Amino acid sequence: MDKIRIGIVGYGNLGKGVEMAIKQNDDMELVGVFTRRNPDTISLNTENAKVYSIDDAKNMKDAIDVILLCGGSATDIPVQGPELAAMFHTIDSFDTHAKIPEYFSHMDTVSKENGHLSIICVGWDPGLFSLNRAILESVLPNGKSYVFYGRGLSQGHSDAVRRINGVKNAVQYTVPYEKAVDAVRNGEEPDFQSAGDRMWRECFVVLEDGADANKVEKEIKEMPNYFDEYHTVVHFISEQELEKNHSTMPHGGFVLRSGKTGKNLQTKQIAEFSLKLESNPEFTSSVLIAYARAAYRLAQKGETGARTVFDIAPSLLSQKTPEQMRKELL
Amino acid sequence: MDKIRIGIVGYGNLGKGVEMAIKQNDDMELVGVFTRRNPDTISLNTENAKVYSIDDAKNMKDAIDVILLCGGSATDIPVQGPELAAMFHTIDSFDTHAKIPEYFSHMDTVSKENGHLSIICVGWDPGLFSLNRAILESVLPNGKSYVFYGRGLSQGHSDAVRRINGVKNAVQYTVPYEKAVDAVRNGEEPDFQSAGDRMWRECFVVLEDGADANKVEKEIKEMPNYFDEYHTVVHFISEQELEKNHSTMPHGGFVLRSGKTGKNLQTKQIAEFSLKLESNPEFTSSVLIAYARAAYRLAQKGETGARTVFDIAPSLLSQKTPEQMRKELL
Repeated sequence: MDKIRIGIVGYGNLGKGVEMAIKQNDDMELVGVFTRRNPDTISLNTENAKVYSIDDAKNMKDAIDVILLCGGSATDIPVQGPELAAMFHTIDSFDTHAKIPEYFSHMDTVSKENGHLSIICVGWDPGLFSLNRAILESVLPNGKSYVFYGRGLSQGHSDAVRRINGVKNAVQYTVPYEKAVDAVRNGEEPDFQSAGDRMWRECFVVLEDGADANKVEKEIKEMPNYFDEYHTVVHFISEQELEKNHSTMPHGGFVLRSGKTGKNLQTKQIAEFSLKLESNPEFTSSVLIAYARAAYRLAQKGETGARTVFDIAPSLLSQKTPEQMRKELL
Repeated sequence: MDKIRIGIVGYGNLGKGVEMAIKQNDDMELVGVFTRRNPDTISLNTENAKVYSIDDAKNMKDAIDVILLCGGSATDIPVQGPELAAMFHTIDSFDTHAKIPEYFSHMDTVSKENGHLSIICVGWDPGLFSLNRAILESVLPNGKSYVFYGRGLSQGHSDAVRRINGVKNAVQYTVPYEKAVDAVRNGEEPDFQSAGDRMWRECFVVLEDGADANKVEKEIKEMPNYFDEYHTVVHFISEQELEKNHSTMPHGGFVLRSGKTGKNLQTKQIAEFSLKLESNPEFTSSVLIAYARAAYRLAQKGETGARTVFDIAPSLLSQKTPEQMRKELL
């Protein structure tokens, strides 16, 4: 069987994760990584795959089946998505929730015009969490949906702390309150007034020589939007400790539907989908790869335009045949 | 908008659950219940819906969009499925795992020949658990899948206890070992030799007057297949206690994928889908109703043949439009 030929755009944590995930899927092969950096500065871990300048993508249309956008949602994907959907079937992890309708519409138009299939907003949230939100709300229309994140490393909040004067390095973990989690899992259907009722924030900070710890701590805790509405705990540690204990990128969380059924809507029914990830980028890239398989199959059937996880039947994700799936997984 | 017109075959716990679930879904209405009993002995909780003899189904082809088979998998569904798929689009909860390929093939043929669409094996296992098994295995190809049932009432085991001489009434709960659950959730990937390593069984038994408790307990614990390979605890209680504390049908459980990613497959990634249900039949019927919506939509598009949950895109289950879903749920 011919393998599905994959291209990666961007070689950060996510792009590297995709490269590793491809090796776990026998039906795929990595053709190349596309970068804005000087290609000579990057060496891959895949034999036969090459590093190209992003400008060379247009010459590779016939060599790649599906291209995976592994840049950021703030500035990379909104530009690269439409550009690349004009040349390839694409997968991306666009996650700026407020801009999804606009991005979908743009990608749908470009993909259709060029006969391509793009699946947008793939990962775990948006992605597998969205899938479960949709399915569980459909099954339990009377109920409340909850989402909790963590314990996990927040990239955005870590960056915000690192920008403070006197901070050499830092990571920030988002941590759900156990009490809030328990209330939700017990079907108590609590009303949380703000995200600060559901989780708190824990920072591990390495100071520059001579920096004032009290001043840094105050600045973190009072930072608007990021920390001021949360209970925040700050630990000062050494560079060695940070390297040793905080260099992976764990994350996780869950979506939960607390529903009621029966004659008087008095029967409690609780459904939950949860993740406990030692590496957020490695898991996200594993999801991207499964949806790349779906994009390839839909494109083979002649489908074009933009899709989201809501439009993808689970059978399209699996390496197994429909017969195998019914026999082994149903 | 025209409502989706639903028929129910069989008015046991599941059929009654479907009737209640329809009331939670504004886009559906119950047309009638079909029964093998004398229709006059059944009264419904739905205005305008009627009870019919199962033999009258053939006269109702134009009045019903989707019919839901709410009988048992052992003898009812294998016969009723193909008969009714010749007349209607159908949903069923067939759950005899070993016979699924054969049943699928039969339903696929009949449905196609008659221009109908049938979704088989719908519920939570098979059903939502199968869905998660498939998706999570696709995302984490290197890993192990686990399934745990309970704490929940097992219909089959309760029936087995009730058949023992001297037993007036009984219920049996399947209970997972916390230690086994913890090991799996921690990503230890234990190898269980048998189901008895994962769960135990708890029986609540009402004795007939003058029955020998020791003899009954021994007979339960030694019953082949059902109990002999499990740690089993038997409680003797009064009829009143049974009625008061054990008359609902709670169930639940979870499917879990414990996977590894990364260069040397050393990064642990754990994904879990779990259910905690106060009423198993009410939840199962809520799932059936959501898939009835999908069957109706696929049939409207002219699709025919048999499907399983693997073939159904999540968007087909939702009352929301694709635009709403992208805006509110992605």
